[in-house]
Amino acid sequence: MNPDIRRERENATFSTELLTNILDGDQEKTRRRREIVSLVCSDPDFEHEDLNFLSRSERYEAAVKKSAQMILKMREYGVSDPEEIYCYKSSVHRGRSEPLDLHLGMFLPTLLNQATPEQQERFLMPAWNLEIIGTYAQTEIGHGTHLRGLETTATYDPATQEFVLNSPTVTSIKWWPGGLGKTANHAVVLAQLHTQGKCRGLHAFIVPIRSTSSHKPLPGVEVGDIGPKFGFDEVDNGYLKFANVRVPRGNMLMKYAQVEPDGTYQKAPSDKLTYGTMVFIRSMIVGDSARALSKASTIAIRYSAVRHQSELRPGEAEPQILDYQTQQQKLFPLLATAYAFQFVGQYMTQTYHRITGDINQGDYTELPELHALAAGLKAFTTWAANAGIEECRMACGGHGYSRCSSLPDIYVNFTPSCTYEGENTVMMLQTARYLVKSYRQARDGQQLRGVVSYLNEADRRLRTQPVSAAPQLDADDLPGLVEAYKLRAASLVALAAKNLQAQLQKGKRQEDAWNSTAVDLVRASDAHCHYVVVKLFSSKLEEVQDSEVHSVLATLALLYALHGISQRSGDFLQAGLLSVSQLPRVSQKLKELLARVRPNAVALVDAFDYRDEMLNSVLGRYDGNVYENMFEWARKSPLNRTEVSEQGPRKPDTTR
Amino acid sequence: MNPDIRRERENATFSTELLTNILDGDQEKTRRRREIVSLVCSDPDFEHEDLNFLSRSERYEAAVKKSAQMILKMREYGVSDPEEIYCYKSSVHRGRSEPLDLHLGMFLPTLLNQATPEQQERFLMPAWNLEIIGTYAQTEIGHGTHLRGLETTATYDPATQEFVLNSPTVTSIKWWPGGLGKTANHAVVLAQLHTQGKCRGLHAFIVPIRSTSSHKPLPGVEVGDIGPKFGFDEVDNGYLKFANVRVPRGNMLMKYAQVEPDGTYQKAPSDKLTYGTMVFIRSMIVGDSARALSKASTIAIRYSAVRHQSELRPGEAEPQILDYQTQQQKLFPLLATAYAFQFVGQYMTQTYHRITGDINQGDYTELPELHALAAGLKAFTTWAANAGIEECRMACGGHGYSRCSSLPDIYVNFTPSCTYEGENTVMMLQTARYLVKSYRQARDGQQLRGVVSYLNEADRRLRTQPVSAAPQLDADDLPGLVEAYKLRAASLVALAAKNLQAQLQKGKRQEDAWNSTAVDLVRASDAHCHYVVVKLFSSKLEEVQDSEVHSVLATLALLYALHGISQRSGDFLQAGLLSVSQLPRVSQKLKELLARVRPNAVALVDAFDYRDEMLNSVLGRYDGNVYENMFEWARKSPLNRTEVSEQGPRKPDTTR
Repeated sequence: MNPDIRRERENATFSTELLTNILDGDQEKTRRRREIVSLVCSDPDFEHEDLNFLSRSERYEAAVKKSAQMILKMREYGVSDPEEIYCYKSSVHRGRSEPLDLHLGMFLPTLLNQATPEQQERFLMPAWNLEIIGTYAQTEIGHGTHLRGLETTATYDPATQEFVLNSPTVTSIKWWPGGLGKTANHAVVLAQLHTQGKCRGLHAFIVPIRSTSSHKPLPGVEVGDIGPKFGFDEVDNGYLKFANVRVPRGNMLMKYAQVEPDGTYQKAPSDKLTYGTMVFIRSMIVGDSARALSKASTIAIRYSAVRHQSELRPGEAEPQILDYQTQQQKLFPLLATAYAFQFVGQYMTQTYHRITGDINQGDYTELPELHALAAGLKAFTTWAANAGIEECRMACGGHGYSRCSSLPDIYVNFTPSCTYEGENTVMMLQTARYLVKSYRQARDGQQLRGVVSYLNEADRRLRTQPVSAAPQLDADDLPGLVEAYKLRAASLVALAAKNLQAQLQKGKRQEDAWNSTAVDLVRASDAHCHYVVVKLFSSKLEEVQDSEVHSVLATLALLYALHGISQRSGDFLQAGLLSVSQLPRVSQKLKELLARVRPNAVALVDAFDYRDEMLNSVLGRYDGNVYENMFEWARKSPLNRTEVSEQGPRKPDTTR
Repeated sequence: MNPDIRRERENATFSTELLTNILDGDQEKTRRRREIVSLVCSDPDFEHEDLNFLSRSERYEAAVKKSAQMILKMREYGVSDPEEIYCYKSSVHRGRSEPLDLHLGMFLPTLLNQATPEQQERFLMPAWNLEIIGTYAQTEIGHGTHLRGLETTATYDPATQEFVLNSPTVTSIKWWPGGLGKTANHAVVLAQLHTQGKCRGLHAFIVPIRSTSSHKPLPGVEVGDIGPKFGFDEVDNGYLKFANVRVPRGNMLMKYAQVEPDGTYQKAPSDKLTYGTMVFIRSMIVGDSARALSKASTIAIRYSAVRHQSELRPGEAEPQILDYQTQQQKLFPLLATAYAFQFVGQYMTQTYHRITGDINQGDYTELPELHALAAGLKAFTTWAANAGIEECRMACGGHGYSRCSSLPDIYVNFTPSCTYEGENTVMMLQTARYLVKSYRQARDGQQLRGVVSYLNEADRRLRTQPVSAAPQLDADDLPGLVEAYKLRAASLVALAAKNLQAQLQKGKRQEDAWNSTAVDLVRASDAHCHYVVVKLFSSKLEEVQDSEVHSVLATLALLYALHGISQRSGDFLQAGLLSVSQLPRVSQKLKELLARVRPNAVALVDAFDYRDEMLNSVLGRYDGNVYENMFEWARKSPLNRTEVSEQGPRKPDTTR
């Protein structure tokens, strides 16, 4: 092991193992996770050449092969708990998306939730056995977030008792579904249902798109891959165009809404029924943000411990770059953010499971709050992690730009989460809608409950407390900082609501007033989410028994909170929560916290507990032996397979 | 043409052609640029398949072939002015780096500047004729920014009158030089010179690394490609390891320092001689930032004009996404930034040329200021453009993630500029060193000149003016905003200097005190650069004659300045340049400016005047016909070459 990184570990003041257990949930969960990861890593069927050296087509082929193996093996080993499936799957694909993601994550669950028993009998077992491979075709080339705008039609023909699917325009071509390009032979297609001369809105249809024997596209179906992307090389995101494709009446998913043989339409009893899945997926993405950022900070911090550069003191050896205050300023707030998001992810999963119980009993009371929280936190955490991964990459200097660092790969595979499952700005505005509604309710005398209960006092407080009366914010007092974040959120929600009201009073229509205030509304949602994150991090500390672990986590929580205040000091000053004379103290304290994190930085990323196989990063190796391995890796580069390039620069006739 | 984008152009309030001329310099420069771009675009030798569909090896091969053609053709057409060479070259490679970049940009200039007449005779013509293809090998796997830390040795052997080159450690392997991996047969190697038992520091040596006949590596030379990177697929960045490689004494570049036949060492007369090139390259990178960001905003703004999404008003057609305030808030400040950086780039080039005249006459007076400015602005503009390109990509939703948007490509090819030619944080600290030195000189009574002259009053002002006496900052008054940026910079430079002093007074050593204040120092440099950019944008307005163009540029300048204030409002409040009660006015004004830019947004990006071939983006097409062309592009994807994939998911035995 590299002596620098060994020394870092020796100097840590806490037990990484205890912290790993906290991150996993408990000791048993750590054990089981490691067991599954080992199972995959020791399986010769899942070995592969470095993906960086393969073409996109080769990466797709390799991924499809592994996905098929994976499904068989999970069945063989009895891996069936959703968390364990997730763990097995992300070990096989090293956290990347894969061609069967939508088959497993959308096609099968949609069958389970929206198919009638008869339909389940027809489709579920073949799908489970991979005779049917499905995808979920919703997004169209011209339509994304706004579902009502989708144009694909399914017109019922009572003469033959069939639905006729069509893509009436260029903009209606289905675009983006994973696994559609090459892999799937069936799709759940979202289309505008037309029957008895009327459009009945969006419904889901099971449409065979390729022959189950030859795998060739069926008549009337035009299907293919949408071409190379920033990342997601393993996934065949596809396009799909219909010209009078007929499916039997029984292929519309009819558990809720129905079309009778004569074309009579029966509405679904409620529209909340598909709401839960969306909330669940967004909650899961919060955890993805935590994982992506924790991987990136593991790589950057380990590398910064072994990389030496420049001189602090003339004539002395070059210091570890982790000793530079500017490097600490880049990486430690991100490390703290990774921890914060881990705990927020845990909270979202727990809350989802708690509320699911209520929902199954028909109690939807808490769903709107969870929906608003999941939307906002999905946006808040993915934006932060997205920018953070790139900061980590650039903090590794030139070597971060090499694919051997794995940082480019982590980024390109994570960044779509800012867009998919609800574009982030749209998500922030959804949360804002809930916040403004809650604010108005509180103003009108209703007593709010849950996370927005702080809005009960927001209006009163803003009317009574003069801005100049800034409290003596104490940079060491975490509960006091949580309170400051709360009041900042209250102040920005109130400000957005007030600006919205002013637009309405000018006579603008509701929608135009909303659009003219959108910047303020996003800002309010952002402040709300920031408050929730700081609060949950602070609450998590109360559960931590071990005093050494508690101490190091408390330092991170303080760093997270103060760093946010320094980045957004204008907000805190504007809300009268901070005075100008306190700012130097905030800066000073931040610098002290960086120095306090420094000796534990490597141990803190070790606690994330990524095996080298999972990080797949030469810079982030556990043993710190970076340079010799980088050299080994480079020698395997495809360009080095020939000693002299085919098309050397000397080949063209230079005498002309 | 798409009717939406046609309407945008019809509604513009100014002449794009006049603005294009301002961006180019004058009308004649626009004409000549277009002529060169046409020459390349109509040349069948420079046609190529979409690079997105090629493997990295294919991209390299194609680039090498084009580069060799390019050199011959520039000679044929008499393209020899540096600006025209740049234009021709970036037209051929569509703004990408290419394998001969270091041959043209470093190897040849180093020969011109540092070789003796005899050496020039030996190497220059063969290099010009591509018999010698060179690269510039400085960076090592373990050493980057800190040149004194380089480990490669060149030991003089008087017995044979040769230098013996060695790579004594793993960390000393040369790493990253472009063109080294496969293309070059010579390298200028930076190595520690040892002669007569003493190390004399870094010197440059011309080292043959591959046979000029077989192109195979010469004995003792281990050379190859460093493997795939985030981008730069066309460039064979390489590694190079020496084991007792001997070159004749005449291969050390001896225009300045010399080693005599007996090994006697003659020092160079001055160390400022290689200083100028570095400043020049950093100045050029400011222009690169402008170009990268202007390309990205062209794509995002044109696409936002043709993309319709969601509904503002129930029942009405989906609006252009450019009508959403949040979309304007993302894109218009970046558009303003692209303009600001274009003008800063022009200023840097002009200043460099002006000062070069002085330098050639031995007058180095202005060099330190230009050096500090180039370092800081290189960092400031590349960071902003880097983040801005990604904002543009994400503002295009899912389609921005497709390689057909070209945004991933623009990003991966631009982002290394945050690291190369001086890592950005190191650059900011270099500028800070100059600022602190200037601040101290002013405090000690010296009268500063040039851009730092504002520090003359900084100390006095900060001591006399109470923070509460905020001036009535007027959101419409650009000169007043420039003044506010100036005073903010003064305040942050003074703060950093004060904090540094406090550390020294605690008894810390100079270097440790510097490191403990590094965060403040970077912040001061950032504020200084921000001031310079706002000031130069404002000055540029004075040169603009046409009142319509003036009006639209003035709006952008105001937007740029106010957006910065709102992002960094804490700084302005802290410095007493803004009061809390003024913040709502700043926000309101910003929203008004977004609405004012809106009707001219498409015309403003049209004025950047990128031909479709140069943008290579389906989303950014001039005619706005996005969807049909995206479909065409996708059909050509390599994965669609077979109807059924080789390794389908059904192939593995699913019955086991």
